[in-house]
Amino acid sequence: MNQSFKILNFLNKQLQNKRFINCLGSMACSRYEYVKSYEKEDGILPNVWIVVRVDGKGFHKFSKVHDFEKPNDEKALNLMNNAAQTVMEEFRDIVLSYGQSDEYSFIFRKETNVFNRRSAKLLSYVTSLFTSSYVMNWPNWMGDKKLQYPPCFDGRVVLYPSDQNLRDYLSWRQADVHINNLYNTAFWNLVLQAGLTNQEAEAELRGTFSADKNELLFARFGINYNSLPAMFRKGTILLRKRVQVTDSKRQLIVPIYDDLIRDKFWKTHPELLGKYTPGEYDNESAQNDMLPELLTRQMGKVQIELESR
Amino acid sequence: MNQSFKILNFLNKQLQNKRFINCLGSMACSRYEYVKSYEKEDGILPNVWIVVRVDGKGFHKFSKVHDFEKPNDEKALNLMNNAAQTVMEEFRDIVLSYGQSDEYSFIFRKETNVFNRRSAKLLSYVTSLFTSSYVMNWPNWMGDKKLQYPPCFDGRVVLYPSDQNLRDYLSWRQADVHINNLYNTAFWNLVLQAGLTNQEAEAELRGTFSADKNELLFARFGINYNSLPAMFRKGTILLRKRVQVTDSKRQLIVPIYDDLIRDKFWKTHPELLGKYTPGEYDNESAQNDMLPELLTRQMGKVQIELESR
Amino acid sequence: MNQSFKILNFLNKQLQNKRFINCLGSMACSRYEYVKSYEKEDGILPNVWIVVRVDGKGFHKFSKVHDFEKPNDEKALNLMNNAAQTVMEEFRDIVLSYGQSDEYSFIFRKETNVFNRRSAKLLSYVTSLFTSSYVMNWPNWMGDKKLQYPPCFDGRVVLYPSDQNLRDYLSWRQADVHINNLYNTAFWNLVLQAGLTNQEAEAELRGTFSADKNELLFARFGINYNSLPAMFRKGTILLRKRVQVTDSKRQLIVPIYDDLIRDKFWKTHPELLGKYTPGEYDNESAQNDMLPELLTRQMGKVQIELESR
Amino acid sequence: MNQSFKILNFLNKQLQNKRFINCLGSMACSRYEYVKSYEKEDGILPNVWIVVRVDGKGFHKFSKVHDFEKPNDEKALNLMNNAAQTVMEEFRDIVLSYGQSDEYSFIFRKETNVFNRRSAKLLSYVTSLFTSSYVMNWPNWMGDKKLQYPPCFDGRVVLYPSDQNLRDYLSWRQADVHINNLYNTAFWNLVLQAGLTNQEAEAELRGTFSADKNELLFARFGINYNSLPAMFRKGTILLRKRVQVTDSKRQLIVPIYDDLIRDKFWKTHPELLGKYTPGEYDNESAQNDMLPELLTRQMGKVQIELESR
Repeated sequence: MNQSFKILNFLNKQLQNKRFINCLGSMACSRYEYVKSYEKEDGILPNVWIVVRVDGKGFHKFSKVHDFEKPNDEKALNLMNNAAQTVMEEFRDIVLSYGQSDEYSFIFRKETNVFNRRSAKLLSYVTSLFTSSYVMNWPNWMGDKKLQYPPCFDGRVVLYPSDQNLRDYLSWRQADVHINNLYNTAFWNLVLQAGLTNQEAEAELRGTFSADKNELLFARFGINYNSLPAMFRKGTILLRKRVQVTDSKRQLIVPIYDDLIRDKFWKTHPELLGKYTPGEYDNESAQNDMLPELLTRQMGKVQIELESR
Repeated sequence: MNQSFKILNFLNKQLQNKRFINCLGSMACSRYEYVKSYEKEDGILPNVWIVVRVDGKGFHKFSKVHDFEKPNDEKALNLMNNAAQTVMEEFRDIVLSYGQSDEYSFIFRKETNVFNRRSAKLLSYVTSLFTSSYVMNWPNWMGDKKLQYPPCFDGRVVLYPSDQNLRDYLSWRQADVHINNLYNTAFWNLVLQAGLTNQEAEAELRGTFSADKNELLFARFGINYNSLPAMFRKGTILLRKRVQVTDSKRQLIVPIYDDLIRDKFWKTHPELLGKYTPGEYDNESAQNDMLPELLTRQMGKVQIELESR
Repeated sequence: MNQSFKILNFLNKQLQNKRFINCLGSMACSRYEYVKSYEKEDGILPNVWIVVRVDGKGFHKFSKVHDFEKPNDEKALNLMNNAAQTVMEEFRDIVLSYGQSDEYSFIFRKETNVFNRRSAKLLSYVTSLFTSSYVMNWPNWMGDKKLQYPPCFDGRVVLYPSDQNLRDYLSWRQADVHINNLYNTAFWNLVLQAGLTNQEAEAELRGTFSADKNELLFARFGINYNSLPAMFRKGTILLRKRVQVTDSKRQLIVPIYDDLIRDKFWKTHPELLGKYTPGEYDNESAQNDMLPELLTRQMGKVQIELESR
Repeated sequence: MNQSFKILNFLNKQLQNKRFINCLGSMACSRYEYVKSYEKEDGILPNVWIVVRVDGKGFHKFSKVHDFEKPNDEKALNLMNNAAQTVMEEFRDIVLSYGQSDEYSFIFRKETNVFNRRSAKLLSYVTSLFTSSYVMNWPNWMGDKKLQYPPCFDGRVVLYPSDQNLRDYLSWRQADVHINNLYNTAFWNLVLQAGLTNQEAEAELRGTFSADKNELLFARFGINYNSLPAMFRKGTILLRKRVQVTDSKRQLIVPIYDDLIRDKFWKTHPELLGKYTPGEYDNESAQNDMLPELLTRQMGKVQIELESR
């Protein structure tokens, strides 16, 4: 950056800073203000992918207290997706979000300059907004079920220099949902359908491989694991796409339930690793011939807005 | 810490880590898991005061949209206090919280080992819990007023090595509320009572000192600034105190509206800078002969609990 | 990395740590040893280029006291090159070093795991070894000139995620040497040849562009700037190359005086940005038909070694 | 710090920065200069003790190659002390240095603002200057013994918030020298006097406590461990003291061989933990009725200087 601009910028920012101006005339203020210098600079290295991941704190208990369906509660997952949508609408530099279970990862493009890449700002703001939207939208997805205590998420910032690193990160999270969901599906069928205790179900699954669990599900419960809802098996990918709503195109946040470990995903959405501009959404070929509810809710709002003109 | 304990601890933690166990048997998992090593260690230096401060994002607009009373909305401030109370109930190592306007500071004692002093964990968890409680308790304080969009807070972690540094930090925040609240009180009386436009009120106050604003309030509006509610003028200090509820003592979070710049405050609450144990609360001499609502609500819950035995 | 290996590694390291073993049996030691936990983790993000740059402290004065030739002292520059050679011989993961004036940059390949990428270790070790070699080799290049006081270098670590960032960094340093050396050449000719005072020479050059300085050198002193030694105009690039010495090939540190801003340099040395293995050196086409002294000194040592077999 | 001063300071620094000025007129320079923004801020938290410790790299081998006397080489230790003296003369904010074996710790007072408390600057400069002085002064202490290869030190920065932390740090290092030196003294007497192999000596000492080693030294070699030179048993403390030289007082760096674990040391040198000003040195009561050589060399220089007036 040009140095002279930096100086002007600095001066401008100071002059617009009301607190600073106030303090010039206040002895009390300037006497204590040295404490501000104890704040640490925490700018993130430029030109790397920034991942912010939020994770539910104690959601094992939270899901029990709030009687979530086992092994997956579709509404609770959509509430997570809704919170993530709020975050993506606020931060235009998030190009992809990925959620599974009680966690969500937000991918900021390498070039983002949001909050001057200050790590604590980014981390706390994303985590707070996600939490806020989760609590505020609770009744919209969970109906009459009352919130018993405030749910809470922790967050972390992780940096990935190369596109391959980023893909490996997302593959890691998606491999995780596969392993956990297959286990949980088998576990809860043993408990809820076959009447085993938690301990018995755990013992039965100990040491089994993926193939064994697939077989168990099919043989004992007639369940073809691969035909279960993709959202449960693969997690939810949120992308920014231009969607046809009646006769106009709008940029919306679109949920995708796809395999992001394979190259195909990245070829289908070339905007992600290239020079970023939102892609186009093909309403007709949407999965299961049915638009996901998270999307139809957004489309509904746009329609109301269009009609009210 | 003893090294052999550290080793055993490390092994134990690994063995209890289900994800780790799962991954031992999974090729897919271990192939991508290297990405975990990109996470950065962020342990906070031991033996320093840890301050986490949360700040409302865009609360100027938020308070306008939600029609907060000007210059101070008692209910909205108590909602802030309620959110802070939730945070203090969760983190036993917070010895004092201080709130004013749309910000709250949480003081963790020097010795705390919460989350192994990992900065991002601490920051994100506190910010998330504060936000969650704020949104969830909104109807309890704001009545029928509906939340229009999710409110959001950013957070920061600042470290203070000495007790004097910590006192200066808190003095800085309290000096800030004095300056701002005096200005705002004058400003909103000029606008709401005297019918000036925002610009006219601003012009009238430009260049005035504290004494001028005090004089203006008294001369034009008959307001004695020092008799306005202490919560508006000094902000809210939350302390952990043992409170008499019917015939038993309970540790509760008590709001105090006091001058923490003076030595007297620190002598009255010697537990804060000494070897920490919660102090005793003198119900009778509570300010204004009236227990604050934040406290009576807590006492109410305890009474219900006691009676239901 | 595999977690079980990590555990074994950790245990092994502890067991080999004599200080640790000693301390197990010592009360005094374990009572104070907690202070070790105050050391901060400073691992560098994986998969980014690591640049360590050392810079002479107060070399303006140092070069004056030691009567360096102006504007360039070839021997002093070769002493810098020699110190850099020592560093490259020690750290096999340095793929390129670049020196000019009183500074040297060392480029560690992205994948390096030296010192587990701990920043302070890397920084302090490189800076110390460079300094040590500089002082120890002083008489080998500077002859009878006696060192008047200990010279000193500061260092910094900078990270570059992409190959383009790295090239831009090196281009920045080489553009710097061009600007400074052209100025210094003009300045010192005005002072030493034309007899101007420092102030007069400075005044004469104020506001001039590169073309003006080139013209001045030619018109007043008959100097064609581009025919001055490349080491002065471009700085020194050190690469690791396989060099023919009598009838065997040896990997040596080779000085190159080339334009590294252009693509051509990176095409000529494809090992730098690719999968790293040292390249081949073409003794015959060496610059100026003369092998640089830094290289011939190394070749001399190898010859002595070969002959003594 | 006052904000307006900060602005002026910033502008001043930029204007004095020749590189910056040069770049204003240079396209090439500004195109690449963005890479400078990749440097990370690394300011150290204010109001904490800063310890920089340098450690010899591979000094086991180095001392063997250079034939150091075992278990302690007085001259080599004094060379370390001399290097530390150079560092203390340069950095006036170092109030105490402590050296033992191949390591030296430098204690910067809490209030220091050297290099604006930038960690990498401080670390690299101290390590480089120590190294430089060590190599340059080698012939002054080691006589004809020629340096075979450049010795090298790594360094680290550790922060201690409280005075007790600092004392515990130094106690830790001094407990370490006690343990190691007692072991080494026993070991080398077994090897050099009793003719054991290294393995036999190691076996003999395995599992022994301090008392056992004391006993062994006395019984087998007639050595009273406590009468060995204090520098070997306690390490070297360097303090800044006002020393009488002929008829004037000079501030010099004075070596002290004392027990710094006990309170007495800190009471004898109250300047260290109080408001720092150098203390007075009592030439007469110096240890062993003999001034240490490190000090007499400094006094010699002052005398020459005084006489040459």
